Amino acid sequence: MRTNDNVVSIFALGGLNEIGKNMYAIEYGNDIVIIDCGNKFPDESLLGIDLIIPDISYLVENKERVRALIVTHGHEDHIGGIPFFLKKINVPVYATSFTLGLIEVKLKEHRILRESELIEINSDSTVQIGEMNITFFKVNHSIPDCLGIAMNTPEGTIVNTGDFKFDLTPANNERPDIHKMVQIGDKGVLLLLSESTNAERPGYTPSEQMVGENLEKIFTQAKRKVIVSTFASNVSRIQQVVNAADKTKRKLALLGRSMVNVVKVAMERGYLFIPKGMLIETRDINELSPEMVTIMCTGSQGETMAALNRLSTGNFRDVEILPEDIVIFAAGPIPGNERNVTSIVDNLYKLGAHVIYGSGSSSGMHVSGHGYQEDLRLMLTLMKPKYFIPIHGEYRMLHHHRILAESVGVEEDNTFIIKNGDVVDIENSIARSTRTIPSGNTYVDGVDVGNMEFVLRDRKQISEEGMLMIIIPMNKQEEKVLSEPEFISRGFVDQNFSELREGMNRITMETINELHEANRYSWNTIKKQIKRSIAQYVKEHTKKEPMIVPILMDI
Amino acid sequence: MRTNDNVVSIFALGGLNEIGKNMYAIEYGNDIVIIDCGNKFPDESLLGIDLIIPDISYLVENKERVRALIVTHGHEDHIGGIPFFLKKINVPVYATSFTLGLIEVKLKEHRILRESELIEINSDSTVQIGEMNITFFKVNHSIPDCLGIAMNTPEGTIVNTGDFKFDLTPANNERPDIHKMVQIGDKGVLLLLSESTNAERPGYTPSEQMVGENLEKIFTQAKRKVIVSTFASNVSRIQQVVNAADKTKRKLALLGRSMVNVVKVAMERGYLFIPKGMLIETRDINELSPEMVTIMCTGSQGETMAALNRLSTGNFRDVEILPEDIVIFAAGPIPGNERNVTSIVDNLYKLGAHVIYGSGSSSGMHVSGHGYQEDLRLMLTLMKPKYFIPIHGEYRMLHHHRILAESVGVEEDNTFIIKNGDVVDIENSIARSTRTIPSGNTYVDGVDVGNMEFVLRDRKQISEEGMLMIIIPMNKQEEKVLSEPEFISRGFVDQNFSELREGMNRITMETINELHEANRYSWNTIKKQIKRSIAQYVKEHTKKEPMIVPILMDI
Repeated sequence: MRTNDNVVSIFALGGLNEIGKNMYAIEYGNDIVIIDCGNKFPDESLLGIDLIIPDISYLVENKERVRALIVTHGHEDHIGGIPFFLKKINVPVYATSFTLGLIEVKLKEHRILRESELIEINSDSTVQIGEMNITFFKVNHSIPDCLGIAMNTPEGTIVNTGDFKFDLTPANNERPDIHKMVQIGDKGVLLLLSESTNAERPGYTPSEQMVGENLEKIFTQAKRKVIVSTFASNVSRIQQVVNAADKTKRKLALLGRSMVNVVKVAMERGYLFIPKGMLIETRDINELSPEMVTIMCTGSQGETMAALNRLSTGNFRDVEILPEDIVIFAAGPIPGNERNVTSIVDNLYKLGAHVIYGSGSSSGMHVSGHGYQEDLRLMLTLMKPKYFIPIHGEYRMLHHHRILAESVGVEEDNTFIIKNGDVVDIENSIARSTRTIPSGNTYVDGVDVGNMEFVLRDRKQISEEGMLMIIIPMNKQEEKVLSEPEFISRGFVDQNFSELREGMNRITMETINELHEANRYSWNTIKKQIKRSIAQYVKEHTKKEPMIVPILMDI
Repeated sequence: MRTNDNVVSIFALGGLNEIGKNMYAIEYGNDIVIIDCGNKFPDESLLGIDLIIPDISYLVENKERVRALIVTHGHEDHIGGIPFFLKKINVPVYATSFTLGLIEVKLKEHRILRESELIEINSDSTVQIGEMNITFFKVNHSIPDCLGIAMNTPEGTIVNTGDFKFDLTPANNERPDIHKMVQIGDKGVLLLLSESTNAERPGYTPSEQMVGENLEKIFTQAKRKVIVSTFASNVSRIQQVVNAADKTKRKLALLGRSMVNVVKVAMERGYLFIPKGMLIETRDINELSPEMVTIMCTGSQGETMAALNRLSTGNFRDVEILPEDIVIFAAGPIPGNERNVTSIVDNLYKLGAHVIYGSGSSSGMHVSGHGYQEDLRLMLTLMKPKYFIPIHGEYRMLHHHRILAESVGVEEDNTFIIKNGDVVDIENSIARSTRTIPSGNTYVDGVDVGNMEFVLRDRKQISEEGMLMIIIPMNKQEEKVLSEPEFISRGFVDQNFSELREGMNRITMETINELHEANRYSWNTIKKQIKRSIAQYVKEHTKKEPMIVPILMDI
C-alpha cells in the first residue's frame, strides 16, 4: 500500500552481507522494478542443499505492482534465481543479447521459456516503466555484455553499477563507457548502489592484457599439449587462449558441457572469434602431435564432476594428461575452493605435468573481474552521488567501501550500510532508513523449494554423531509391547555395542512401564521419554550424542 | 625379521602426501627409532571424526625392536599421536624441555603420565641406541625449543630437519645453529629428510622482527584496547606482543585456556619474559582505561569455541569489544580456515572495531614458521646430502622440493618422492626404494579408535541426501508379513511424500512376494532387493538418493 507518491524506495532481497543471490529493487509510485535475481551456492554446513535463492514473499504479496526484471549480466549470482522468480511473478525480463542467451538456457531447463517475455536491450536502450525512465551504460567485467543501470525518477536518479572493473585494455574491446558515466554523474545522481567485492584490495585491478601476454609466453615455450582451465563464462579469457593458440598454430578442443555451450552462444552472437578450422573434436586429439593441441576445459575450482578433475584422475574418455603437458589454471581459486584446487594440482604433478596455478598475482594467469579500491573510487568520482549504498559484499567489504566513498567526497552519514530487507526511502532529496520488509533465504533441494531449517538440523546431527533407531513393536489397543525392541545404528560406532544394547533395552522397557503405571500412554509421550532416557544413557557411556529415533509400530 | 645388518632403512607412517600426522622411522640392525608422532585434523568430509593418527600396525608387529621415540618439537602434527602410540608401545620419549611440557599435558589427559618415561634433551645431548649415535642441532620455528636430528649409523648419517626456517633476527635469541649444521654436512650426510611446507614459495621467509616492528607501530597509535589473536604455541609472537605492550605501558590479559596454559609453561621454563605486574585477570579489564589494556587470545583460525569468536559475538563474560578497539589477527589463516576467519572479521567490524587481518604479506602481522624456497636451498646446501627425501608436505610441495634439491647439486635420481609406507633401504651407500610396509589412517572418534571407513560412508550419504527407513514386521517362521510397512524419513524431504509412500508400499510388497514365489526367502536377499527397488523408485520420482535402510523385524 503506497501512501506517498513522492517517495522513491530502495531495498535488497539478496546480495547484502553476502556474496551471492543478488536481488535489488526500486519502488516509485505504483511500480516496482527488480534488478537481478541470482542464486547462492551453499557452504559445507548446508548439507545436501543445491541452491539458495532470495525469499520473495514481499514481492509476491505486492505482485500487481511488480513491473519488470532488469538483468545487469549473466553470472549465476545475478540470474540463477530467475526461473523460480518467474514461476511466481511473470514479468518481462530485460537483458543484453549474451545475458539473454544464458537466461534462455535456464528457462528451457525449467520448461518455462515459452511463457516468458524476454526483451533484448543494449547500452543505448531506454525503458519506460510508469514514471521511471531507465537508461544503461557499458561496464567491463569477466563476462561479456555487462550493463550498469540508471533509473531516472522525478525524485532523482538511482544508479546500480552491476559488477564492474575499469579495464582500459580489455579483450574484444569491451571497454567501460566512462564518457556516459560522466554524463550521468553530471546530470546528478541521487543514490548510487555499487558493488563491493574487492573493496579490501588496494590499487587498481590488473588488466586482462597481462594474462594474454603471459599465456602467449607459455604457449610459445610449451613442447607438448597445453590444457587451460577457466570459467566457461569468461569469454575474454577464452578469447585470449584462442589468440595464443592461433599464434602458436595449435588446434583447440573444448571439454566440459558448459564450456561447449557458452562458446557456442558466444560465437553465434558475435562475442568470441575463433579462426576457421581451429576447433577440433575430443576424439581428434590423439590424432595430432601434442605440440599442436590446446585443450580448454571446465573445473578450475576443483569441482569433482567437471572436466579438469576427471582429467587429473585419468577418468576422461579419449583424453590423457601425459608427462611434460602443461596445465594452466586461468582462474584464481574462489575463497573456500582452495583445497579442492590443490588436490587436483597434486594429481596433475603425479601425472608428470607442469602446472601453473595459484592466485592471479602469483600465477599471472588470472585477473579479477571486480574493481579494486581505486576502480571503486573512480566509479564514485564519476557518479558523484549524494547518497551511497555499497552492495554485493560481505560486511567487511561494505565497510571498506564506505571508507572509500568518504575519501572521495560522499558526506559522512550519507552512506547506508544496510541488510537485506532494510528499506531506504528518499523524499524531497532526503534519505532515511527506518523500516524493513520481509526477506530471507529460500532453499532449493533437488526438486523441492522451501524453508528447510528442520531438515538441515537433522542432517547436521546425523552427519556428526550418527543415528540410533529404537524400533518397538506394540499393540496400540492393548497398550502392550509385543517383543524386544530392535536397535539399529547408522554412522554410530561403539566398541561395546552389545553391552550398550542390553542397557538400552532395559531402559526402554522401564520407561514404557513407568509411563504405563502413571497412565501416560500417549505415543508422543512415550517416544519423547525414550528419546531423552536413551540419549542420556548413550552420552554417559560413550561420550557421543547420536540422533535417537524411537519408532513405535502398531502391529 | 632382519636378514641383513648392514642396511639402514627409512620410512614414514605419516607426513608424506599430507600436512599432518608426521611419523618417521629409521631401522638399523635390530633397532627401530621413531621420530615424531603427530595427528591430523579431519576436513569437512570426515564427518564427526575428531582426529586422525598414523596406523602403527607395522610397529606393533615389530614391537620388540622399537627402542625410542624422539620428538623434534611440540606442534600437534608432531606430538598429537603420542598418547595413542605409548598405549600400544611404551618406549622412552626424548624431547626438549618446552616440548616435554606440552607432551606431559597430553599424557595427563590420557592418564598415562605415570607409566611414561620422558627424557629431557637439548642440542648438546647424545643418545645411543644400538649402533645408532644420535645428536641434535637447534633449528628455528614458530614454537620454542626445536631440534633437528642427526642419526649416525655405521652405514652413514641420516638427518631429519624437523620443522624450520632461517630467521637470523628471531625473538628471544632462538637462532638456528648454522655452524653445527655445517659440521654435520662436512662429516657427510648419507640421506636428508627435510620439511617441504613452503616449497612453493619463492624467496626467504621474512623474519619475526618485522612483526615486532609492525605491532609496535599499531600499539603506539592505538587509542583504546588492543586485542591480539595468535597461536598459543607461538611463544615468540607472544613475546613480541608483550614487548609492544611494555613499550606503550599497557597491561596484559590472557583469554583462552590454551593461551593461559602455554604462557604458564613458557614462563616457568624460561622461554617467555613478562615484566612483573603486567599480567592482569580478565575481571580487571574493565577497571582500567582502555588505552592501558592489551588482550591476547586464542581463536585466530576462526574456531567457534575459542575466545576470539566468542568476543566477536558478545559471548565472553567480563570482556566486550567496543568501537575504536583494535583487533589484530597475528596469525595467517591456514588454508581451509579462511571463511571462518572472515566471518569473525565481519562481526568485529559490526561492533565498530578496527581489524587488521589477512595473510602475513598483506597484514604485516604474521610470518610463517616454515622455510620458503631459499631457506630450503640453504638447508640442502649446508647438509650436502647424497640422497634426499622431501617430507612434511602434499605432493606438489614434495615435487617442488625435489626441484630445489637438484638446483643445489643433489643428483638427479637421488631424490625419493615416496608415500607413507614406502621404504628406502640403503646398503653400501646405495639407496633403493623397492618395498612397502603396512600404513594408513587410524580414526579417533570420541573414545573409539579404529578404522571407520564404513561409518564415514554412511554418514556422508545421510548428510547429503537424508535417510529413508522401511520397517517391515514379519513372522520369520511362517514367512509372512504381519502388517503394512512403516516408512520413516530423516533429513529427506519430498512434497509428495504420501504419494511416494503408496508407491513404495506397493513395491515393497511386490518385491517380497516375488522372492517368496522364487523361494528366495533369506532376509539378506529380501533386504537387498527392497533396497535396490526402492532406491530406484525414489530416484526416478524425486531425483534424490537418500540412504535406504530396510528393517525386517521378527515379531
